[in-house]
Amino acid sequence: MRLAQPLQALIDQLLKLPSIGPKSAQRLAMFILRLPDEEARQLAISIIDAKKKVFPCPTCGYLTDVNPCMICTDQRRDNTLLCIAEEVTDVMAIERTGFNGRYFVLNQDFNLLKGNDIDDIDVKSLQERIANGGIKEVVLALNPDIDGEVLSRYLASIIAKQGVKVTRLAHGLPVGGDIEFTDEITLKKAIEGRKEF
Amino acid sequence: MRLAQPLQALIDQLLKLPSIGPKSAQRLAMFILRLPDEEARQLAISIIDAKKKVFPCPTCGYLTDVNPCMICTDQRRDNTLLCIAEEVTDVMAIERTGFNGRYFVLNQDFNLLKGNDIDDIDVKSLQERIANGGIKEVVLALNPDIDGEVLSRYLASIIAKQGVKVTRLAHGLPVGGDIEFTDEITLKKAIEGRKEF
Repeated sequence: MRLAQPLQALIDQLLKLPSIGPKSAQRLAMFILRLPDEEARQLAISIIDAKKKVFPCPTCGYLTDVNPCMICTDQRRDNTLLCIAEEVTDVMAIERTGFNGRYFVLNQDFNLLKGNDIDDIDVKSLQERIANGGIKEVVLALNPDIDGEVLSRYLASIIAKQGVKVTRLAHGLPVGGDIEFTDEITLKKAIEGRKEF
Repeated sequence: MRLAQPLQALIDQLLKLPSIGPKSAQRLAMFILRLPDEEARQLAISIIDAKKKVFPCPTCGYLTDVNPCMICTDQRRDNTLLCIAEEVTDVMAIERTGFNGRYFVLNQDFNLLKGNDIDDIDVKSLQERIANGGIKEVVLALNPDIDGEVLSRYLASIIAKQGVKVTRLAHGLPVGGDIEFTDEITLKKAIEGRKEF
């Protein structure tokens, strides 16, 4: 099939995006071509702008366009509570719960299958953050998988040495879930973690 | 949830794209932020470029960046065969079959439910194209739905007046389909259109 070169170039670029296949790329490209000039320009500018202006907050690692970030400068937050997350998107999810502490985003890959070594995890800035004082509890909010488990234990051992209480997110039934279809490990954790009614 | 303003702006822009929901928009935005600067710039430029340089071919209506388009200037095509399609994306699909005639893309909405009037369909340029001579057969390649059927009949009556043979795409079983699950109208058309083995 022969397409106009700029249209083919746009489709090729869209194809690089995650979970965009050839048909979606073509549909998106056609949609963009039908947009008013100004709206297409806005889309292009928002890409350049986000790339240029957004960076990880040097204090907590959350994505920001000001330094320190909105969360770090928020005076109404609990300074004694520090939540450790693997990625910025995890913080976005936790923020939606109304969690009111501070964050520390690792922004580092740790995947045993990919051969990552736990000793390569840079914990220095985390230790410094805790050493600066004020933090009484660190909540480990790492993904509930093998990698998250290994990394959680490693971080817990390091943080405990600094005399700070370490907690982790609870395992259990997802709200709206179905006991019948819950895997046995999750169900076991839910029974172990049962609470008084 | 509070996001850095340029990141929120990017997500808002991506949300306007078809079949991109809030989660996809966030995932795409995060992906774009992690791209190398040059690749993000290429993506933005391809949007601007496609909008600026691509236009419908004045002769056939296909999207092009040169006038006339690649299909219209292709000398190896059959000038006696003209395929009428509703949209550029239909031409893309027909091109993949190796169809070797010329095209005429209507590029006009016709939807009975939306209250479009068939008299509003601009057929003047189509009539002129056919009047210019050389075309012996017009293939109607409109979508096999009610709107396509109504429009096909309307166009067929107009084109027939110009003394040109009018054909339409065959109805029948989709290749790889299942007779058991084929709707009765399609199956009826497949029986009516049966061919000698």
